[in-house]
Amino acid sequence: MAKGLEGVIVDTSSICLIDGNAGRLIYRGYDIHDLVSNLSFEEAAHLLWKGELPNQTKLNDLKKQLDQQRAIPPYLKTAIRNLPVSSDTLDVLRTAISALGTGVSLKRPDLSEAINITAKIPTINAVFNRIRRGQEPIEPRSDLGHAANYLYMLTGKEPDQAKADALNKYLIALADHSMNSSTFAARVVASTWSDMYSAITAAIGALKGPLHGGAPAPVLKMIQDIGKPERAEEWIRGELKAGRRLMGFGHRVYRTTDPRAEILRDVASKSADKEFFALARHVELTGNRILKDYRPERRLYTNVEFYSAVVMHSVGLPPDLFTPTFAASRSVGWTANVLEQVANNRLIRPDVEYTGPMNLKVAPIDQR
Amino acid sequence: MAKGLEGVIVDTSSICLIDGNAGRLIYRGYDIHDLVSNLSFEEAAHLLWKGELPNQTKLNDLKKQLDQQRAIPPYLKTAIRNLPVSSDTLDVLRTAISALGTGVSLKRPDLSEAINITAKIPTINAVFNRIRRGQEPIEPRSDLGHAANYLYMLTGKEPDQAKADALNKYLIALADHSMNSSTFAARVVASTWSDMYSAITAAIGALKGPLHGGAPAPVLKMIQDIGKPERAEEWIRGELKAGRRLMGFGHRVYRTTDPRAEILRDVASKSADKEFFALARHVELTGNRILKDYRPERRLYTNVEFYSAVVMHSVGLPPDLFTPTFAASRSVGWTANVLEQVANNRLIRPDVEYTGPMNLKVAPIDQR
Repeated sequence: MAKGLEGVIVDTSSICLIDGNAGRLIYRGYDIHDLVSNLSFEEAAHLLWKGELPNQTKLNDLKKQLDQQRAIPPYLKTAIRNLPVSSDTLDVLRTAISALGTGVSLKRPDLSEAINITAKIPTINAVFNRIRRGQEPIEPRSDLGHAANYLYMLTGKEPDQAKADALNKYLIALADHSMNSSTFAARVVASTWSDMYSAITAAIGALKGPLHGGAPAPVLKMIQDIGKPERAEEWIRGELKAGRRLMGFGHRVYRTTDPRAEILRDVASKSADKEFFALARHVELTGNRILKDYRPERRLYTNVEFYSAVVMHSVGLPPDLFTPTFAASRSVGWTANVLEQVANNRLIRPDVEYTGPMNLKVAPIDQR
Repeated sequence: MAKGLEGVIVDTSSICLIDGNAGRLIYRGYDIHDLVSNLSFEEAAHLLWKGELPNQTKLNDLKKQLDQQRAIPPYLKTAIRNLPVSSDTLDVLRTAISALGTGVSLKRPDLSEAINITAKIPTINAVFNRIRRGQEPIEPRSDLGHAANYLYMLTGKEPDQAKADALNKYLIALADHSMNSSTFAARVVASTWSDMYSAITAAIGALKGPLHGGAPAPVLKMIQDIGKPERAEEWIRGELKAGRRLMGFGHRVYRTTDPRAEILRDVASKSADKEFFALARHVELTGNRILKDYRPERRLYTNVEFYSAVVMHSVGLPPDLFTPTFAASRSVGWTANVLEQVANNRLIRPDVEYTGPMNLKVAPIDQR
């Protein structure tokens, strides 16, 4: 039995490679360090979707398409406004992407839908974030890139370049990660020949779980609860003693440092408040040291969630937008994977081993 | 590589056994023929959720809970009213279940949510079906069972017993089917410790695909297109000659007749118009005969979709409510599987074999 499917090869893919032992992450043949240092999010999206880096003409074309798709239709704005203001932000995003798909008749997923979804996720997040605060939504601006537009729609102020750059790097670093659970959920849905919106709605739901995309906000809370470097050791030991999982440490695939954690640490060192970054770094080092003693067989290091939280906090995102912002990045990987799935599809349907009773007979209700 | 995961055992389960060679389907130890002949849908739901048939007290308690949960909150009615009237009915259901989950903070899935979702799916389907026709939604009635209530909310008329019985049997026969793609999608989502509504939203999206739950409406269209028994042979041969898949025939798991097809044929023989049933039966026999010649190695028979379409048509459901009605049945299996998943959870995350390029270097954009 392959519970959890660990080590089961479900398909081939030319999108993403994780080398968990070497701590490497590759999109379409390019190392993630190289991509984050050199590209805009739009270029990385082109790479993941089309398998090649765009030249200037192709990049301009993609940017134009994203620009045209960023605004959300009035019925969707009404749909978001209608949800309880206390709603979980990721639930709102899941519902809005599902609602976006209601007007579309069943068809084979295509790139235009990938672009549409990727363009609209930041807008949906920003619209709900403003509505629940009693503020009017802000329309996207066609002179800003994807990352800058997101921050602009949240605040109404053009973000400074450093923040837009930090978010841009975050969006690239998280954009795909091979057959993670949310991507896999999207592929399972697409394998029935369902549509793109159904697949991405499923992925958003999977991202919500704390074992997957739901961890960054608790990481921020942990760092804030610790508050001062000198409290880190006691706090962390207390958590472990109480049998609680330490958020932001450990990954099923990486047996060494997660390259995205390194990248985002570097980003955070520039974008975050100096004192806060120093605190986070101290928590990281303390956690790594304690975990090495505590579970020497596991080699647990900070994972991508840890510095994701620090970076997103540093660009001004509220904690409950962390996972919806993860979705704004991962939507590229999700949709690229759906397109790959339907290009060479086979229904994904595993087996189970039945361990229940057999040969029972239905007794009349008064004899049960 | 296990593309499609056929034959890969993903977990143990004590909910449902499919014996594809013998053509048997077992829920919690009971044969599906026995269940459909003797139970109400509510009793079958109790069995799937709790692992045992209810006595009268437990059944009354479950019925009461379903009654209390059937009406949908005002914001959800507004949400449905706000969607384009031309929306796909299953997309509306997916969006409504997602919206239903927005008010709930992240918690471990439990039975009360299973009951809530199962109670509300017929209501959501009926509300949208009336709204899009310009009719006022009809509130559920506490003196009617689950199947009868559904038909009542669609039409405003108390259904005759034969129709309610036919729908009741359909709802039991389709309520679970082991690790089918939609159930698997729900379990993948739940395995991240996401919530019940996220899991069921994913399942609804997976059900949409024509390889899974999306086939009954095309089956009805096929039978109606054929129109007369004497046209069946030519029509079917034409489809196969054109390389098209014959809807309602064949199943990945069953290598003999699908027991549900037999059950629903029997139901349809009583609930459907006599002439229409005779036509459907002729199409079935003709299809089976031609497919035996055409693909002797595959042993293709009518599947559950075929007579699902005939039964749902016979109780007055419009074709585009066929798959949402399938969801009204399968929601029991989905939620039972989510509860089983979280009772002994492991994150579901398979691997892939990377077949893309390696060691590429990012060139400046003007050199691409």
